[in-house]
Amino acid sequence: MKLKILYSFLKADIELIEKELENAIQSHSPLLNGASLHLIQAGGKRIRPVFVLLAAKFGQYDIERIKDVAVALELIHMASLVHDDVIDDAELRRGKPTIKAQWNNKVAMYTGDYIFARSLEYITNIEDAQAHQILSSTMVELSIGEIVQIKDKYRYEQNLREYLRRIKRKTALLIAASCQLGAIAAGAEEEVHRKLYQFGYYVGMAFQITDDILDFTATEKELGKPAGDDLRQGNITLPVLYAMENKALRSKIIKVTEHSTKNEMEEIIRLIKSTDAIERSHILSKKYLVKALNILEELPVNRAKKSLKDVATFIGKRKY
Amino acid sequence: MKLKILYSFLKADIELIEKELENAIQSHSPLLNGASLHLIQAGGKRIRPVFVLLAAKFGQYDIERIKDVAVALELIHMASLVHDDVIDDAELRRGKPTIKAQWNNKVAMYTGDYIFARSLEYITNIEDAQAHQILSSTMVELSIGEIVQIKDKYRYEQNLREYLRRIKRKTALLIAASCQLGAIAAGAEEEVHRKLYQFGYYVGMAFQITDDILDFTATEKELGKPAGDDLRQGNITLPVLYAMENKALRSKIIKVTEHSTKNEMEEIIRLIKSTDAIERSHILSKKYLVKALNILEELPVNRAKKSLKDVATFIGKRKY
Repeated sequence: MKLKILYSFLKADIELIEKELENAIQSHSPLLNGASLHLIQAGGKRIRPVFVLLAAKFGQYDIERIKDVAVALELIHMASLVHDDVIDDAELRRGKPTIKAQWNNKVAMYTGDYIFARSLEYITNIEDAQAHQILSSTMVELSIGEIVQIKDKYRYEQNLREYLRRIKRKTALLIAASCQLGAIAAGAEEEVHRKLYQFGYYVGMAFQITDDILDFTATEKELGKPAGDDLRQGNITLPVLYAMENKALRSKIIKVTEHSTKNEMEEIIRLIKSTDAIERSHILSKKYLVKALNILEELPVNRAKKSLKDVATFIGKRKY
Repeated sequence: MKLKILYSFLKADIELIEKELENAIQSHSPLLNGASLHLIQAGGKRIRPVFVLLAAKFGQYDIERIKDVAVALELIHMASLVHDDVIDDAELRRGKPTIKAQWNNKVAMYTGDYIFARSLEYITNIEDAQAHQILSSTMVELSIGEIVQIKDKYRYEQNLREYLRRIKRKTALLIAASCQLGAIAAGAEEEVHRKLYQFGYYVGMAFQITDDILDFTATEKELGKPAGDDLRQGNITLPVLYAMENKALRSKIIKVTEHSTKNEMEEIIRLIKSTDAIERSHILSKKYLVKALNILEELPVNRAKKSLKDVATFIGKRKY
């Protein structure tokens, strides 16, 4: 099943945002245009805009007012991906060469800066002061998260709490902000937008854990990059943390470097999958999902609520 | 003479901003704190905050309202320096190792991102919508400027117009915005803050041209980095453009690479100084300065006006 079906009634608005994203990155610099367009065309699930729109249905839904929030949040997300690819020395994203691979690290750094700056132009259009506060503090946390991620690489003695704090900054906070800001931009009541924030936070946590599981369970074709790539880059994710409880496996895992061969990685992946690490990761992901769905229950009934529920459930089950 | 003397009546407020800058970059990440503090302590002229404060004197000067603007602008400037040092492979800035040299490119990229994000928190406190528009479009131009600077490196067939557009984005726009935003934050009239923007723009152009001259005329000790470093990094500045009008010298200049030795650079610098390139650069810088001073004449008389005039004149004559 495709994610899109879950919010097909938003099709026209999602397409509008897709167009707006393309407009947003236009500049007179061919180099910048090339790099940014490359990124936009690589696609992505656009789940942040989707959450913005769905959350806005809990207020006075007016696409003209909401679209700037949706575009800004997707641009922030995209900018952070470009910089992440530099840190992770990632060659591929969604099956396409990354900007740092197709051009170089410097072009990637500045393309990220540019997309980030463009997002500010959209944020400028948002009138609500609270929205600005949420966005700026989210961006500070996001950037602290980036630094912590460098520090935590190949650091095998880290614990579950550190992992959870990292994925909170990396993913959950921006999805939480997407839900809350969509609601705020639509003038939803405080109680409602606060709950949507919580919902987004839990969904974001589940989403990232699922992502981290897929790095081991999905195929290279599904991932658009080699399986086990996170581990090879030294990113200690939840399945790895669980797998390392097995001392023998731990001693193999800590030998992984970015120079590990495909065969070596396949063997490590096989070993990790032979433990209960994947299963236990699924259980934690599901725990977050249940928390998200429980909060959703407290919100008024509307068409968007059903979609939010479906999207959240999809995220827990997705295979790519 | 020291620049500080020209605005000694702002001493207490400048110190307040210096403290606020130190607070602004605090985080729980020791790595991030180390890198950011390193940058703050490397100092700098803080001319953007100075322009914010002086411009605010043309309205209702209230340091509590203005300081956020001053801090935000200095943080944006600092963030862009960190990223510039990555692009320029700069080892030293103001006599100290750069963040990319002391740590690495990745830490520098994220430290820049972090400082940039922190600036947004300060910007959030600014209520004026016009101020947000000016800031966000300045940041877009700044980031386009960064990309163009990569593209223009070692591109010897560029012309004066391209150089001027580049320094506009690199320096003049942010100084123009500093002047305008200080005035806007103090509730100055539109006519006044528009003139201050123009003043800042011309001063900024003169400032950058002077900077580019100093790369050839100042000593390594004064610069805090080797003389001719801009040229070695492929940055074609105004003195270089003028010097290249001499065919024989041009053929030598285009052979400069980042691997050129100290002796080779000294010889090139000597040759460039033997032409009229430095003198002609001074003339263009002075032209911008005169434009700045003329605009100042149109503004109401106050203590700040005298300081702005002195600072502008200082910039044209400075030796470091």
